[in-house]
Amino acid sequence: MPKSDVKEPTLFIIGGAEDRIGKSSILRLFVRKSGGKKARLVIIPTASSFQAEVAAAYTAVFEAAGAAEITIVNPRSRRAATNPADVAALDEATGIFMSGGSQLRLSQFLPGTPLGAAIHRAYERGAVIGGTSAGASIMSDFMISMGDEGTTTPRQRTSQISAGLGLLKGCIVDQHFAQRSRYGRLMSVIAPSPHLIGIGIDEDTAIIVSRGTEFTVRGRGAAFVLDCRTAYTDAPDARRGAPMLVSGAVVHTLPAGATFDLATVSLREFVEMHADAMVTKAMAKA
Amino acid sequence: MPKSDVKEPTLFIIGGAEDRIGKSSILRLFVRKSGGKKARLVIIPTASSFQAEVAAAYTAVFEAAGAAEITIVNPRSRRAATNPADVAALDEATGIFMSGGSQLRLSQFLPGTPLGAAIHRAYERGAVIGGTSAGASIMSDFMISMGDEGTTTPRQRTSQISAGLGLLKGCIVDQHFAQRSRYGRLMSVIAPSPHLIGIGIDEDTAIIVSRGTEFTVRGRGAAFVLDCRTAYTDAPDARRGAPMLVSGAVVHTLPAGATFDLATVSLREFVEMHADAMVTKAMAKA
Repeated sequence: MPKSDVKEPTLFIIGGAEDRIGKSSILRLFVRKSGGKKARLVIIPTASSFQAEVAAAYTAVFEAAGAAEITIVNPRSRRAATNPADVAALDEATGIFMSGGSQLRLSQFLPGTPLGAAIHRAYERGAVIGGTSAGASIMSDFMISMGDEGTTTPRQRTSQISAGLGLLKGCIVDQHFAQRSRYGRLMSVIAPSPHLIGIGIDEDTAIIVSRGTEFTVRGRGAAFVLDCRTAYTDAPDARRGAPMLVSGAVVHTLPAGATFDLATVSLREFVEMHADAMVTKAMAKA
Repeated sequence: MPKSDVKEPTLFIIGGAEDRIGKSSILRLFVRKSGGKKARLVIIPTASSFQAEVAAAYTAVFEAAGAAEITIVNPRSRRAATNPADVAALDEATGIFMSGGSQLRLSQFLPGTPLGAAIHRAYERGAVIGGTSAGASIMSDFMISMGDEGTTTPRQRTSQISAGLGLLKGCIVDQHFAQRSRYGRLMSVIAPSPHLIGIGIDEDTAIIVSRGTEFTVRGRGAAFVLDCRTAYTDAPDARRGAPMLVSGAVVHTLPAGATFDLATVSLREFVEMHADAMVTKAMAKA
């Protein structure tokens, strides 16, 4: 099999508010990864409150990036998430893209349905599974469905976890991370469950995850990683609303060009890049 | 010498916006630590743009807390920071309190002047040196005089360091920490200077530092500690405005009741407390 046909399970996880009007670097990269002119893309605008507009917007960007085959899959209910034509479109896709909006709407309609199963099959055969904002959070097995934002201080019982699609194991992914100051809420859910790794993605920033074991960062912001495995915490005991004690957590801020190993929870490589993915300088990790 | 007369160098560092109207727990604690009814307090409102109002407000709270001897020291210029009566008041003080406002105004008028020297003498003889907001930042040798806030992502050359009073060595103290989302700016100045420990204090929260080597936390929020000694960073090379790579920093979120060892940069003890300093439960550190 020619090397270019070998695909590996790939997640393309965007922190929201990616550029759709100007250079659209991140979305163009998604199309390239999905096969460029040969891509067969499916857009799932279901999370959004403005599904028609969102579907049209992404269609325009993907077409401008060279994709010719674009299908919209938009189940109106959990029952509708069985539609055979939609399942067939997902089974043919080389790239699947979930828009932003409400992750609870996605979690209601996708996991455990034929559409959800088709997304899993697509992932396993090496299609690129992409999503932004809510469409990013839904990727992991655990996701933050709601929580206080705007603070670095984690507080007890101010965030809620729900179940996601489970494509990315052992992580919780949050988005709009720097812009909505979500450090505190991510800390509040990871500290009590330190076997989970927290990943916070800034706006107009993406992580591209290979085989669920490593990711590279692209875009204008950073991906933040939170590792509480060696932290001491009072999370089991803190009173509702009280600031949570978390001592000795390990954190990483990873700009474009970083490659991070999720198995060892450590930086593997950093190649300094412009936000638009021009390599500026290669640095060896000391 | 009776034990109650033995005083140790004490800093009472508040993250801003402390309650001055209701229970005023933190400010009452400052007065208690400074000798309660026997306290001889000096208020320095110099950082503020509303010095008379600020001086009056703190005088009222301190009097309500039982202090009877309160002097205002407010140099109008660096030249005026030589006034012998002001120096004498500081030399007699058991507690000195610097208000919020502009830390650059404080750094212009105090370090290297007779008033600044008197504050140092007061600290060494065991008076409580207190300050909030700008009056907190001025305590350390290095302080953030300005910088982008509102983001967790550190960016190159977006923050500026100036010199403080140098009472607290080897640290940078930032304030309004959670409320103004200052994690990114603190990271941006500590990553390039990892021998410095970053401390971010939330509003209505204080750290009480003993002998410059350990502190306890009181109040409604948390103190955040940033330790970049083992972090890998591109800080020397990152382009102006670019997100900074920082991998492997160690962080601590410390609510009221935590005691933190600045020498080993680790949690020493945690006694769970209400924000108003009622002990709820003693926990041994595992």
